[in-house]
Amino acid sequence: MYRKAKVYAVILAGGQGSRFGDSVPKQFLPLDDNNCSALSMILTSFRRSDVVDNIIIVCHNAYHDLCQHEVNQVQVYQYSKKPMDIVNGGKTRQQSTYNGIKLIDDPNAIVLIHDGARPFVSQEVILQLVEKAFDYGAVNLVSPSVDTMVSSSDGQLMLGIADRRQLWRGLTPQAFRCNLLTHAHHLANKQQDHNATCDCSLVQKYTNQPVSLLVTNELSPKITYPHDIELIKALCLIRDAQGQTNGS
Amino acid sequence: MYRKAKVYAVILAGGQGSRFGDSVPKQFLPLDDNNCSALSMILTSFRRSDVVDNIIIVCHNAYHDLCQHEVNQVQVYQYSKKPMDIVNGGKTRQQSTYNGIKLIDDPNAIVLIHDGARPFVSQEVILQLVEKAFDYGAVNLVSPSVDTMVSSSDGQLMLGIADRRQLWRGLTPQAFRCNLLTHAHHLANKQQDHNATCDCSLVQKYTNQPVSLLVTNELSPKITYPHDIELIKALCLIRDAQGQTNGS
Repeated sequence: MYRKAKVYAVILAGGQGSRFGDSVPKQFLPLDDNNCSALSMILTSFRRSDVVDNIIIVCHNAYHDLCQHEVNQVQVYQYSKKPMDIVNGGKTRQQSTYNGIKLIDDPNAIVLIHDGARPFVSQEVILQLVEKAFDYGAVNLVSPSVDTMVSSSDGQLMLGIADRRQLWRGLTPQAFRCNLLTHAHHLANKQQDHNATCDCSLVQKYTNQPVSLLVTNELSPKITYPHDIELIKALCLIRDAQGQTNGS
Repeated sequence: MYRKAKVYAVILAGGQGSRFGDSVPKQFLPLDDNNCSALSMILTSFRRSDVVDNIIIVCHNAYHDLCQHEVNQVQVYQYSKKPMDIVNGGKTRQQSTYNGIKLIDDPNAIVLIHDGARPFVSQEVILQLVEKAFDYGAVNLVSPSVDTMVSSSDGQLMLGIADRRQLWRGLTPQAFRCNLLTHAHHLANKQQDHNATCDCSLVQKYTNQPVSLLVTNELSPKITYPHDIELIKALCLIRDAQGQTNGS
């Protein structure tokens, strides 16, 4: 709860992709010494948050039981149980988000949309996102571009160097006032527009609401390539060594 | 040596920045259990390469002794000694590169320009860069943009989402036929243009030579923020545990 607004975290864990040859999708792969997955780590972070009230996990039907198992593991601490619902994913990311936010019947709620393949988010970032969404309506979490950004239309020849001062890496969670996000989804659905891969761009496209940025330097790796697994395992090692527990 | 072309690796280690409050610049900070620095790791990788013949390190005069110490450590293995020269850095990155390539008197050589704050490069990538530079003249090493790229002119409000299929993260080494790179530097110097932060863009700006891309999915972290140090340390731990040696 944040200033009388209920806060929902919607985790998009609907991906079935298993490009690494594993038997389960990447968000369920064990990553640390306790065999915690990305989903488990992020569930733990949202469970621990003082501002998040409810958690909704969007998951493909085929992995519902596995997802429920993760939820049960995270809910083992009685003192901090939180409502955690699992809903079926849609055909696209946008439809999956929509399936998640349909469960929220409070238009004044704040909703965080998070990618289930990103295991880390700090409590500070969660709080700042909720504060900023409460004040401004829509917030995109970004980090500065550290590398030179090279433009190329074909991946073969360089066209030029983009101005990295104007380019930011988009992370998640993204945060919204629920009525604004729902409104954008309704308008998109009416237009048969179902393929947005970013809720901030959907809000920008279908409403007049400006989207604010929250800039962070925190690492927020997403599992895309096998080396991301190695990277996340490395970060788990660091966190364990620093005496922090996973996902905090 | 690659198909009768001599291959030089120029490592830009001229940065004096010590924004982390350490007594030495970031490229000299110990990163693994053997107290190897980023510079030491990358020196080792170039020393091990079958195609790299000579190594030139560009370094601020104040850290010449420290740099020489790193070179001595890496050269301890008699069987694989390689010529390693240290030259003074310039006022800008471009001038530092120029000071490095001035040492190369063979216009047909291939030159790799590498950022001394990036400790990792694989032997496969070195070879592929050299091959491609031999065939095409100028090569930029890039990795795909995994994250959504958000455009914003002020870091406060989102302008839109850039097409990430056309944006690539620029890494190093970059690779060139030496005469091409030298020609671009000479023309830039004539124009009193000394502030390029990327040699590929310098070649593109001052010559008609197209710049090819080599796409890699390998991790190439650069020390920019303090957390990059932690990350690289953890990656070293994992690589050691996997039985690989540092920097290979």
